[in-house]
Amino acid sequence: MKIGILTSGGDCPGLNAVIRGIVLKGSEAYGFDFVGFKHGWRGVVEGSFIPLAEEHVRFLANQGGTILGSSRTNPYEGPFGGPENIKRMMLKHGIDAIIAIGGEGTLTAARRLSEEGINIVGVPKTIDNDIQETDYSFGFTTAVEIATDALDRIRTTAESHDRCIIVEVMGRYAGWIALHAGMAAGANAILIPEHPVSLGQIAEWALEVRDRGSAPVFVVSEGFTLEEMDEAHSHKGLDPFNRPLLGGIADILAPQIEALTGIETRAVSLGHVQRGGVPSAYDRVLATRLGIAAVDAAHDEQWGSTVVLKGTDIETVSLSSATQEPKSVPEYRYYEAAALFG
Amino acid sequence: MKIGILTSGGDCPGLNAVIRGIVLKGSEAYGFDFVGFKHGWRGVVEGSFIPLAEEHVRFLANQGGTILGSSRTNPYEGPFGGPENIKRMMLKHGIDAIIAIGGEGTLTAARRLSEEGINIVGVPKTIDNDIQETDYSFGFTTAVEIATDALDRIRTTAESHDRCIIVEVMGRYAGWIALHAGMAAGANAILIPEHPVSLGQIAEWALEVRDRGSAPVFVVSEGFTLEEMDEAHSHKGLDPFNRPLLGGIADILAPQIEALTGIETRAVSLGHVQRGGVPSAYDRVLATRLGIAAVDAAHDEQWGSTVVLKGTDIETVSLSSATQEPKSVPEYRYYEAAALFG
Amino acid sequence: MKIGILTSGGDCPGLNAVIRGIVLKGSEAYGFDFVGFKHGWRGVVEGSFIPLAEEHVRFLANQGGTILGSSRTNPYEGPFGGPENIKRMMLKHGIDAIIAIGGEGTLTAARRLSEEGINIVGVPKTIDNDIQETDYSFGFTTAVEIATDALDRIRTTAESHDRCIIVEVMGRYAGWIALHAGMAAGANAILIPEHPVSLGQIAEWALEVRDRGSAPVFVVSEGFTLEEMDEAHSHKGLDPFNRPLLGGIADILAPQIEALTGIETRAVSLGHVQRGGVPSAYDRVLATRLGIAAVDAAHDEQWGSTVVLKGTDIETVSLSSATQEPKSVPEYRYYEAAALFG
Amino acid sequence: MKIGILTSGGDCPGLNAVIRGIVLKGSEAYGFDFVGFKHGWRGVVEGSFIPLAEEHVRFLANQGGTILGSSRTNPYEGPFGGPENIKRMMLKHGIDAIIAIGGEGTLTAARRLSEEGINIVGVPKTIDNDIQETDYSFGFTTAVEIATDALDRIRTTAESHDRCIIVEVMGRYAGWIALHAGMAAGANAILIPEHPVSLGQIAEWALEVRDRGSAPVFVVSEGFTLEEMDEAHSHKGLDPFNRPLLGGIADILAPQIEALTGIETRAVSLGHVQRGGVPSAYDRVLATRLGIAAVDAAHDEQWGSTVVLKGTDIETVSLSSATQEPKSVPEYRYYEAAALFG
Repeated sequence: MKIGILTSGGDCPGLNAVIRGIVLKGSEAYGFDFVGFKHGWRGVVEGSFIPLAEEHVRFLANQGGTILGSSRTNPYEGPFGGPENIKRMMLKHGIDAIIAIGGEGTLTAARRLSEEGINIVGVPKTIDNDIQETDYSFGFTTAVEIATDALDRIRTTAESHDRCIIVEVMGRYAGWIALHAGMAAGANAILIPEHPVSLGQIAEWALEVRDRGSAPVFVVSEGFTLEEMDEAHSHKGLDPFNRPLLGGIADILAPQIEALTGIETRAVSLGHVQRGGVPSAYDRVLATRLGIAAVDAAHDEQWGSTVVLKGTDIETVSLSSATQEPKSVPEYRYYEAAALFG
Repeated sequence: MKIGILTSGGDCPGLNAVIRGIVLKGSEAYGFDFVGFKHGWRGVVEGSFIPLAEEHVRFLANQGGTILGSSRTNPYEGPFGGPENIKRMMLKHGIDAIIAIGGEGTLTAARRLSEEGINIVGVPKTIDNDIQETDYSFGFTTAVEIATDALDRIRTTAESHDRCIIVEVMGRYAGWIALHAGMAAGANAILIPEHPVSLGQIAEWALEVRDRGSAPVFVVSEGFTLEEMDEAHSHKGLDPFNRPLLGGIADILAPQIEALTGIETRAVSLGHVQRGGVPSAYDRVLATRLGIAAVDAAHDEQWGSTVVLKGTDIETVSLSSATQEPKSVPEYRYYEAAALFG
Repeated sequence: MKIGILTSGGDCPGLNAVIRGIVLKGSEAYGFDFVGFKHGWRGVVEGSFIPLAEEHVRFLANQGGTILGSSRTNPYEGPFGGPENIKRMMLKHGIDAIIAIGGEGTLTAARRLSEEGINIVGVPKTIDNDIQETDYSFGFTTAVEIATDALDRIRTTAESHDRCIIVEVMGRYAGWIALHAGMAAGANAILIPEHPVSLGQIAEWALEVRDRGSAPVFVVSEGFTLEEMDEAHSHKGLDPFNRPLLGGIADILAPQIEALTGIETRAVSLGHVQRGGVPSAYDRVLATRLGIAAVDAAHDEQWGSTVVLKGTDIETVSLSSATQEPKSVPEYRYYEAAALFG
Repeated sequence: MKIGILTSGGDCPGLNAVIRGIVLKGSEAYGFDFVGFKHGWRGVVEGSFIPLAEEHVRFLANQGGTILGSSRTNPYEGPFGGPENIKRMMLKHGIDAIIAIGGEGTLTAARRLSEEGINIVGVPKTIDNDIQETDYSFGFTTAVEIATDALDRIRTTAESHDRCIIVEVMGRYAGWIALHAGMAAGANAILIPEHPVSLGQIAEWALEVRDRGSAPVFVVSEGFTLEEMDEAHSHKGLDPFNRPLLGGIADILAPQIEALTGIETRAVSLGHVQRGGVPSAYDRVLATRLGIAAVDAAHDEQWGSTVVLKGTDIETVSLSSATQEPKSVPEYRYYEAAALFG
């Protein structure tokens, strides 16, 4: 069997480790051949790929980024997109199946292509940890370690300066990174999209910490909204005070907290630093195991499935079950963490 | 309720985070009081403890070691040991319950004391990840990160020198650290207690790597035995060649591999470096959640139980179910990793 | 002799290590007593301090922040400021001398107070490495390590996404952090206050990198200005296009680079993450040695002096020679690095 | 000009950064061509090399090891060694000059070959920091950071277990790594080759720490000898008790300290972990600058010279001045650190 591999969407530590797991296991155990599509689905629609042999992937586990490049191309768009074109490309190059490593969009496209008869297995990729069915996704733990390290560093500055610092981390729809990093670093409050709170509540937490002689350090997901910010506002790109949104949510909150509490307040946004570089050992193991399981699924012709982590095991589920709405932080996990606030 | 907390046995990153989780949640949510027994069970039998309030624990999550100290004292030994003495000590000081954070020995003692009517909840602690019922134990992920970082560093030296290097990591009965670190760092073979192999097999792997133009890096659990080393040998402290065992298993293997293959071979033992210091964010979150759940269990009077990780949830199980034989690496996990050897 | 220690100005990794060096050496070798003024000069003018004995400082070397707190109070301001009040406070509490750890402002104040007859020794503190007379200042190397690690991570994301990323680091008047981190991480250009370049030049570098098939990663000091931005603009808070300055220089440059080159460009600002947390071993050694030398200088009654690093030695120079204009990156150092641009 | 580069001797973080500095500067500024000799002097005597262009080295700064491989081959040995053979090889391949990156042995060989008329520039490489004339050598700071991190981790275990731990670091003739790491981590004593002390003194330090309620952590250079161990002993491979030397000095000291003090004592040897892997930013900058200066020296035809760090500047000195006896830790540096012992 000859399998084409692609990586799609944003950078995520562990992508290369998945590729390594697929190629080493598939070559050694099944004698499969592999190619790597360049720049995600773009390489699929353009029929552009490179050979992938064991010697290309053996030392990839600790390399950040993706040796295949990535893009946000949609396989259904453009003159060469769509299932018929892709089938023709695969036939032409003797490619029997595709393993697609990507986020919700990629898995949804993979599901549709699978329904059209293309042999596809998915590997879920989301640094925000918000894909259904998998306990954790690779890259997430690395992002949490980076955010926690930043929070640890910021704690000493906040304490030295008697200052409130609000740190923005990734998490557009789900607050997993903020939840874990905040709990790990002892943030005084954790603000996540799943649980809007009021500015008054945040100010109260800040004052409580200050009155104890300490410095408030808060962590906020990029997708957090204040109770006061209704959807209309965020859709219009306005803050709750009807001013254009500039910068991220931390930039919006900091001056408001300072105004309400009188505590000097600063915003820090970790941005791209969270999503690249050397993966943690945890993520390398998870990514490698997902890659191994993906090629096992291909060997078993489990087309239309995706590999996921359940407890300590890698299992396969249907692509459709993994592409429901984002996996949110459940209420009880928020309250578990909130018991330590203030 | 007034609860006494103890930490017992070897150092493990996350001990302080467990204490923090217990005290912050128990104080805020239930109004409990806490004391910390000094030096594990020794503090229990000697009635020696310190007060533990929120201000003592708030910033503990990223601190290595244990603020309570530890020891290998058995609560059943000595003139003041045993359930009746302990009950008397607890009555005298108004201590209603104990949360015992420790390994298999501590949890077994806790189970027995619980059967004698003492209110106890356990928190499993094993850097080797070899306690039943919990998917992972805190400290393990930190140890794996440290071992992986060491393997990454050693890889470059091995390649620069065309040398074989065999790295010994912790794991007396179970090979989890070697399995994960070896998979993460791309070790060319992983040698664990659950799966003896012959010296000839190891030499063959080394030659295979060398013939590919690379340098063999192997990871070995301290408890690994060669197929050739029968139990009689290891019990007598003899190596398979009837010489006294000096140093660890890596020290024994290195000269044999060199003799069989002609490849210059070195041993490195990571030792104590793996078990101390700042916990990873993953372990801080796990430890904090276990602490929170332990005090919840105490609040619910689930005496004789221990808290464990199942998937992404913290659950409680009976102490007896957690104190069976060590949790070994299952065959399929070994073969999953072995597919990448050589 | 009884010496009061203070830390003033922004957080900087190594402050606690200086305090440790002073107190351990001074207590052991000279039998001195120590107090720590709380919150920098504020503690001096308010006569507010804590005792500092060996047991308080022994394990401080790897602790970020400052156990004494900090502030931006000027010792010449307020009803209790000025040399006469400070002398009275010192007399009242039996304090014979002050060791002041702080930046250019603090050293200037120390020099003036010294000229008024107060016994003062200075320790230079600048994370930007911009104080004259010292080869390096503590905290700088830690900041460079953090910025380099961020640049390494961002490199993989830039390459995966074929994106230009511009990373803003500290350095208001001097580009040392950008120079070192950029050289260490292989940034494709380094933009520093000492060397304005034009937007056209930056765009040219970006295109050159892109044309080679790579992704441009640039590092910029917060104090960098474009050749096009004259002083009038920056004083008025306007960018070269006469729009109000929002965010930092990276936020200003990113859209301009994107507009000129057509390469998708993102800005990342490392902010407070660079100035807190555990110091590097290099900075702990430097800070400890500066502390030791400062108390030696006090023992030798070298009032009005400050300790500095020259090569591998710690020496003392006059406070006045250390408080000239900021130490800039010299031209030849810029061109040394620029030889690797593009 | 066409220059051949070689790396010789043990692995050292920064080797690749030197190569990068040489090739990028030499190609861009001078239009030089480069080849890399494979496996140090072995590649020279065998005439075996690879081309080195800008694209091969651009992203090397953060890569551990050496892309050229290394060996301990002596260029004067073997049928193809010696100056005449090397001149013939260079002539045959049009190689005009050699930049040799290596330790004391390599620089000595380079000096002799230079005296025979071969165009050579040296770059000093010693992880032990024991080459004369240079303030620091690349790799040293990385080794110190690794050793300090290990000591930090071991500190928490020692404290938790009330145990003495003695950590062996590299340093055969000079104690620089022990001196810096010990000072950075707050080791309770630092044992270096330049300053033998008696077992009784070490035991006294251990008891002093224990009596203060703390746990002794000592750092020892591999080349340390007890006052009791005369040269005769160490030459015969005997310990002071006339038993064969097994393991390193830490393994010898630990049981003696335990016997004398009654404190449970463990030895940890960091070994190869210290000399590989990603270089610190400090070492990347130093190595890059040395590489740049080496190719500048070649351009200026400063044959027979080596590049060194003096303060913040890179300078050139003669190879003969850099190949005197090893650079030892001077007495005043030892006593500076010793003021903090106990």
